[in-house]
Amino acid sequence: MNPHDFLASNSLLSERVRLSIMATVAAADEPMDFNALLAALDLSKGNLSSHMRKLEDAGLVEVRKGFVGRKPRTVYVCTELGRTELRSYLEGLEALLKAAL
Amino acid sequence: MNPHDFLASNSLLSERVRLSIMATVAAADEPMDFNALLAALDLSKGNLSSHMRKLEDAGLVEVRKGFVGRKPRTVYVCTELGRTELRSYLEGLEALLKAAL
Repeated sequence: MNPHDFLASNSLLSERVRLSIMATVAAADEPMDFNALLAALDLSKGNLSSHMRKLEDAGLVEVRKGFVGRKPRTVYVCTELGRTELRSYLEGLEALLKAAL
Repeated sequence: MNPHDFLASNSLLSERVRLSIMATVAAADEPMDFNALLAALDLSKGNLSSHMRKLEDAGLVEVRKGFVGRKPRTVYVCTELGRTELRSYLEGLEALLKAAL
């Protein structure tokens, strides 16, 4: 596969901001809440929401809604599929660049 | 380094379109001309020009201007610095994701 086709067909992970989100969520020891992600990623709320929705729709992150006392709290975790996809994206990129370099 | 800082500080290569350009130019056996790049990358002319200028300014690609008969022809090659940076970006990403996965 050529670089364009590989990266375009992996656009959920090849876009910088989403790769940053996925790597952050995958590296976290605990589920991360929205504000912790905002602080880690330097994004606007609307921008982060919209990326999280895409990643959730694709099954790469899971959203858990709950309460801390009476306050609602939404946390995000990286799913097994999310880890598998990250691994396979990295392997594809390694193959692509090693062939080119 | 956390994922956000790593990807943001490597934005010349972590943006999907520029990574696609760099991987294409690095993989090419011969210097590529503008139209060949356009066809390989599915971009508009203005978009490709603007990315190529950034990559050239950073020394990652070299632009060679010449003639084929009387027709001007501009070709692009990946520089040694470009290859080094691609390799180091890939290594950084591997370290980042392997720690996360």
